[in-house]
Amino acid sequence: MAGTYRYRIEPRDIDATLRLRVYTVGDLILQAANDDADMLGFGIRDLSPGNASWVLSRMAVEMRRFPSRHETIDVYTWVSDYGRLFTTRNMTLADEKGVEIGAAVTLWAMIDLDTRRPLDLSPLSNKGTSLVDREPPIEKPRKVGNFDPALERPYTVLYSDIDFNGHVNSMKYLEWMVDTLPPGVPALLSALRFDINYIQEAKLGEQLTICSATDDAGAHHFDIRNAGGTSICKATITPTI
Amino acid sequence: MAGTYRYRIEPRDIDATLRLRVYTVGDLILQAANDDADMLGFGIRDLSPGNASWVLSRMAVEMRRFPSRHETIDVYTWVSDYGRLFTTRNMTLADEKGVEIGAAVTLWAMIDLDTRRPLDLSPLSNKGTSLVDREPPIEKPRKVGNFDPALERPYTVLYSDIDFNGHVNSMKYLEWMVDTLPPGVPALLSALRFDINYIQEAKLGEQLTICSATDDAGAHHFDIRNAGGTSICKATITPTI
Repeated sequence: MAGTYRYRIEPRDIDATLRLRVYTVGDLILQAANDDADMLGFGIRDLSPGNASWVLSRMAVEMRRFPSRHETIDVYTWVSDYGRLFTTRNMTLADEKGVEIGAAVTLWAMIDLDTRRPLDLSPLSNKGTSLVDREPPIEKPRKVGNFDPALERPYTVLYSDIDFNGHVNSMKYLEWMVDTLPPGVPALLSALRFDINYIQEAKLGEQLTICSATDDAGAHHFDIRNAGGTSICKATITPTI
Repeated sequence: MAGTYRYRIEPRDIDATLRLRVYTVGDLILQAANDDADMLGFGIRDLSPGNASWVLSRMAVEMRRFPSRHETIDVYTWVSDYGRLFTTRNMTLADEKGVEIGAAVTLWAMIDLDTRRPLDLSPLSNKGTSLVDREPPIEKPRKVGNFDPALERPYTVLYSDIDFNGHVNSMKYLEWMVDTLPPGVPALLSALRFDINYIQEAKLGEQLTICSATDDAGAHHFDIRNAGGTSICKATITPTI
C-alpha cells in the first residue's frame, strides 16, 4: 500500500527567499513517513505502548524546486522492502500542478526506548501486505565519507533540539549544518541532493563539534562529532544546478 | 468577522515531554493571524505587491494546558480594534473537546519593507467591517521592565532564524530565551503566561546577547540586546501552576 499526504507550506516554513527551507522539506518527508506508518498500524502511536520507536538511519533527498508559501505539496510514500534491521521508505513530492519537484529514500531502524538498541523487525513481517513492488525513485542514501574540515564550530545541544524520542531531532542536525554555511549560500541552494547518515544519537547538553568543508565541485560536506571525537551524523549537500 | 482555524500538532512540534513547545504555540497563533488576515483581504499575500508587511509588536499568551501530538487545536481569532499604528488581534485556543486551553492578545504594526518604518493603518479603516466588538480574552501584553541579568549568553543570528520578512522570526526570540533556561526547566512549564515586546528587528549575522534572570516568585525575565547594547526584544514567562 502507498499513501499520499498533503501539506501546506506555512509562513514559518520559508526563508528570506520565500522558499521552503531544506530541512523543513525533511520535516514534511518525515511527517509523511509518520502519517503513513500510523495508517498502516505501525506508527509511533502503535509502538509507544511497547516502548519502541522508529529512528531514521539514512536519508537521501533530491529537490528540483523548493515551493513557496501557501503552496501545497503532495508526498506520495511507499515501503519497498524491509530486512531484519532496516526498512526502506520512499517518497516523491509533487506540487499542486502534479509536477514532481523532489524525491526521497529513507532507511529506518526501530529502537527500544529504554536500551536505545535496535530491535528485530521480523515481527513486522506479517505487515508484508504493506510492501509496494516499486523501486526507490532516486539512488539510495550514500555512505558519507571523510574529509578535511575547513571549519569547526562548537555546539551545545539545547532544549529546542530534542524531540519526542528524547534525543536530537533528525532534521536539527541538517539545520545546524546549513547554518554553518557562509551567509548567502543557503539561499543559493535552489536545487540539490543531500545524503545524511545518522550514526549515534545526541542528548540534551551534549557538547558537539560541527565540522564542514566545501570541495572544488561545490559540494558541502559535514561531520558532527561528540566530545569523544566520534562522528554521530554526517552529510553531503550537492547543488544540482 | 471572526474565524476559526484548525491545526494538527505534528511530531516535530512537541518536546521530550510530548507536549507542544511554547514557541510553537506562538507559531500556530501567528499562523491563525496570517490565515485570518488573508481571508479578510489584508494578509501578507495582499500586502506584498505594495511592499508592506505585518510585524508583531507585542504578544501575550496564557496557556492552561499544552496539547500533545496528533491533537488538533482550534484557534478562534478576531480583531477588536485598530488605531493609526497598531491593531489588536485576539485568540482563544480550544482542544478537540472544545475546552479552552489558552488565549492570546497580539498587537501588530505594518512596516514598509524598504524603509522598515511603520505605516499608517488608516487606509485599512474601510475594512472596519472586520472589527468584532468583543474584549480581549486576557490582559493585554504588558510592557516588560528592566532586571539585573543573572546570565548573559552571546548569540549570532543564523540563516535558520530569518523569515520571509528578512529579519529574525518573532518566535525565534522566544525559542532562544527558553533555550537559556536550565535543563529541565522548560519541561516544567506546563501552564504559563508570557509577555513579549518586540522593539527593534535583528538581521542575519548580527551579534546579540541574551540576558536572563529568574525572580523570587519564579518568573523568568529575558532581554535580548544588540551589539550597541540596545534592547531589541524583552519577555517575561510566568508559570501559573
